Amino acid sequence: MLIAEPLQKAIDELSKLPSVGRKTAQRLALHILKSDSENVDALINALGELKSKIRFCSVCFNISVEEKCEICRSQKRDHSVICVVEEVSDVIAIENTNEFNGLYHVLGGVLNPLANVSADSLKIKELVDRIDQHGIKEVILALNPDAEGDTTSLYITRILKEHAVKISRIARGLPIGGDLEFADAATIGRAFIGRISL
Amino acid sequence: MLIAEPLQKAIDELSKLPSVGRKTAQRLALHILKSDSENVDALINALGELKSKIRFCSVCFNISVEEKCEICRSQKRDHSVICVVEEVSDVIAIENTNEFNGLYHVLGGVLNPLANVSADSLKIKELVDRIDQHGIKEVILALNPDAEGDTTSLYITRILKEHAVKISRIARGLPIGGDLEFADAATIGRAFIGRISL
Repeated sequence: MLIAEPLQKAIDELSKLPSVGRKTAQRLALHILKSDSENVDALINALGELKSKIRFCSVCFNISVEEKCEICRSQKRDHSVICVVEEVSDVIAIENTNEFNGLYHVLGGVLNPLANVSADSLKIKELVDRIDQHGIKEVILALNPDAEGDTTSLYITRILKEHAVKISRIARGLPIGGDLEFADAATIGRAFIGRISL
Repeated sequence: MLIAEPLQKAIDELSKLPSVGRKTAQRLALHILKSDSENVDALINALGELKSKIRFCSVCFNISVEEKCEICRSQKRDHSVICVVEEVSDVIAIENTNEFNGLYHVLGGVLNPLANVSADSLKIKELVDRIDQHGIKEVILALNPDAEGDTTSLYITRILKEHAVKISRIARGLPIGGDLEFADAATIGRAFIGRISL
C-alpha cells in the first residue's frame, strides 16, 4: 500500500528532526492524526511563533524575543564576567544551576575541521570585540569536555592571552552522584589533577 | 532564567507528543529554531495538511484522503476477506509484508475496562454490519498478542459465531530471526501448540 500522501509527507518532515527515525516519525504522525484539531493547531502555532518571534541576541547570540536578550538587559547580573558556551541549550543548562550570575556568549558550535567549522563561522571575533569594548574582567570557558571543545578552548585562550582578561575553564571531575568504580580512567585522572585543598 | 516564552510554549506543545519528554522537546525546539525557515514551513505545512486532508475511511476506518480508502476502492483486492486490527499503524505494518490481499477493519483500540474502553467505543458493530451486508467469507483477527488483544479477539469471535463467516487468528510463535534460548516460556509454549505438520 502507498501510505496516503499527506501522511507520507508528514512522516518525511518529522523524520528530519534530530533522533527521530522513520518509525518514530510514523508514530508521531499517527498520534497527531488522532489528536483533537485544537491540540494540533496549538502545536502548529507554537512552532510558527517559535520561528517568527525568536531571534538571536545581538550581543551574546543567546535566543531572545527582543534585540538584546533578557540576560544581557538585566541589571542584576554581573556585566564584567562572560561565560562562553557552544549552544543555546548550554545557557539553559547553566541557568538551571543558579550558580552563575554573569553574562553569556554563545559561539554557535566548536572548531571542527571535519565538519568544516572554522573559527570564522563561530562568534569568536564578536567575543573579542565584546571583551575589548565593555571592560570584561573574566571569561569562563564552559565548552563540552571533548576533543572539539578542548581545541576550541585552547584556541580562544591563545587569542585572549593578548587581552587584559582573566580566563578560566569549568572543572572536570567525577559527576555528583557518580560512582568512582564506574568512572572512566580519563575522568578519574582529571579529578586527581583538579583536586582542591581543604 | 525564564526561557523565552515562544520557546517555552513550543517545548510545552512538543512534549505532549508520545515518548517526547522535556529534554527531547527542548532539543527539538532548539533544532527547529536553528533550521532554515523553509524547512520549518515545510514541517508546519505537512502537519497542517496531515490534519486537514486525511480522514478515516467510511468503510474500514483506515486513514484515507477520499471517503473510501485506497484499499477499499481497489479492484485488485479480495473483498471477501477482512483482517481486523487495532490501529492504523497495524494496517501499515501488515501491508509492508505483502502477505495479505484482502480488506481491513480498524477497531480503533481494544477492550480495556481499566482505560474505559468498552465494545461501544470500538468499531465492532460496524464490523458485524459489514460482514452481513457485503458477503464477507473470512475474518482474520490480527490484534496484538497481549491480554487486551486476546480478550477483544474472544469477544469478537463470540459475536461472529452467529454469522456465517470463517474466523481465524494470526499465529503466535517464535519470531523470525529469534533465538529459542532467549524466548519466553509463553511464546515457546504457543509455538508448540501451534506447530504445523510437514
